[in-house]
Amino acid sequence: MPSEFELIRRHFTRPTPQALLGPGDDCALLIPSEGMLLAVTTDMLVEGTHFLPDTDPCALGWKTLAVSLSDLAAMGARPRWALLAGSLPADDESWIAQFAAGLFACAGRHAVDVVGGDTTRGPRNLCLTAIGELPAATALRRDRALPGDDLWLSGQTGLAALGLAHLQGRVHLGEALRDTCVHCVAAAVAARRTRHSPARPGARRDRRLGRPARRPRPYRRAVAGRRRDLARSPAAAAGGIEPLLARRCQLAGGDDYELLFTAAVDRRDQLAALAGELELPLWRCGSIVAAPVGAVRVVDEDGQDSGFCDDRGFDHFA
Amino acid sequence: MPSEFELIRRHFTRPTPQALLGPGDDCALLIPSEGMLLAVTTDMLVEGTHFLPDTDPCALGWKTLAVSLSDLAAMGARPRWALLAGSLPADDESWIAQFAAGLFACAGRHAVDVVGGDTTRGPRNLCLTAIGELPAATALRRDRALPGDDLWLSGQTGLAALGLAHLQGRVHLGEALRDTCVHCVAAAVAARRTRHSPARPGARRDRRLGRPARRPRPYRRAVAGRRRDLARSPAAAAGGIEPLLARRCQLAGGDDYELLFTAAVDRRDQLAALAGELELPLWRCGSIVAAPVGAVRVVDEDGQDSGFCDDRGFDHFA
Repeated sequence: MPSEFELIRRHFTRPTPQALLGPGDDCALLIPSEGMLLAVTTDMLVEGTHFLPDTDPCALGWKTLAVSLSDLAAMGARPRWALLAGSLPADDESWIAQFAAGLFACAGRHAVDVVGGDTTRGPRNLCLTAIGELPAATALRRDRALPGDDLWLSGQTGLAALGLAHLQGRVHLGEALRDTCVHCVAAAVAARRTRHSPARPGARRDRRLGRPARRPRPYRRAVAGRRRDLARSPAAAAGGIEPLLARRCQLAGGDDYELLFTAAVDRRDQLAALAGELELPLWRCGSIVAAPVGAVRVVDEDGQDSGFCDDRGFDHFA
Repeated sequence: MPSEFELIRRHFTRPTPQALLGPGDDCALLIPSEGMLLAVTTDMLVEGTHFLPDTDPCALGWKTLAVSLSDLAAMGARPRWALLAGSLPADDESWIAQFAAGLFACAGRHAVDVVGGDTTRGPRNLCLTAIGELPAATALRRDRALPGDDLWLSGQTGLAALGLAHLQGRVHLGEALRDTCVHCVAAAVAARRTRHSPARPGARRDRRLGRPARRPRPYRRAVAGRRRDLARSPAAAAGGIEPLLARRCQLAGGDDYELLFTAAVDRRDQLAALAGELELPLWRCGSIVAAPVGAVRVVDEDGQDSGFCDDRGFDHFA
């Protein structure tokens, strides 16, 4: 096994044209663009919690960065820099090489410089911090939604979680749905089947679509997973599945990499046109109502209102 | 056990006056200061590798941030923001509360806003990313040292590593040295006995001391561990210790939080005066020579040259 320094040199040191100083010193040095905000996010992926031990390391490398790029995209930021800290078992340079290949493939696709990090020994754990930039007026914030706004979703959610439940034996899916959902686990792990939709400065700054904070982010699509021409709801598509499980997967399953955003009602035509222009499936999946923060009122396919629930996302300590 | 969201709300959400948007959205939003560089660093602390399972969680919280602030200080950056990602066992809110208390005590001391993070379940692992700012001309870079420069050190190194070796039974220290060294392990874990030396803008911008990249960083002292009025070399102080172990502790032991920097020979008087002014022990421990990158030539206390070695730091995969 090469030394820690040799491993970093071999696998994690690439040119960093966007940085004044990249890996090798105590810090990376970056020159922020004048007048832009920084958007910063950090995500930790733990073996056994966020990925299975036998996950393809190349796909995992891609996902490790894609998860954080997804956060940047959700706020309308253009990704620029990333730092990777990793705790790894000591004995598998081949795994490390494949992981790095996936990571840097994703970084190259999205013009991200990996400017620094930390490598240590321990249970496999990957922590990525991504830094992006955005014009101050265009930040897409969760606290900007207004009652009455439409809630839009690109694609659908819950398939990866259903596929994982199948792999774990918690549910038995029929063949067609199983293939779709297990495929979504793979797609979520890798987010590889995305088609590249580079940040469109024109679209990003087009204010005609509504208030800045409520415009859709075409860029998100670059990390939004593959398109799916499937029924909107896994619960609807999976007749034999226990409804509560299906709903939990859909509302709080995770690993979906889709865009959920709000827009004023008078933007519907423009959003439909935008969906066509971008070949991006967008559908109105709900609306904002006055209710306690975090509450979700679920209306079934048949129109039945099942009241409020508080599935606010996957809870690691639940 | 409260939910993940409730834990974050209770223990990790504090005011972030330096951020446009703090925890709670997909990213934190920061406004960088005009004309300043960003310095960014990330460090991962793994239970069993960087700290013992029974480490005081409050001290560990302090250390988790102090480690990264030390990197910022080493480059001359003023710390501003931090993000914390943590993988934690699910069953101990008391531990989490104490850890957070230590983390935010350190953050408060150094005017750092904890603007975001990630919480997940798994083997205990803490990953902190710190972001600082510095004027472009004052970055202190490792690649700026020149042959002939003096090498200066604040305090001494190796005591924490020797103390750890004692705790692990790899060496038996005499009573006085043992107390000192084990104390240094505690001090390194906490870096708590530092006296606060706020960033001194005047001193930081004083160019009379030499080229910017080779000036000492008074600020580093704020995370530089406590002062020690001890013999310069643990090897010298610890007569009964196997010399190679002592040397490894001194050159590559880690957890020292001292400043190692270079300066031109004609700055000696100014540095001596600065050491007095700051009540900071500074001593010339060597000089820069033309040699392969990373090589260190060690000269013993009695003047004997033991040649070059390549102890470049602690290697997690060695």
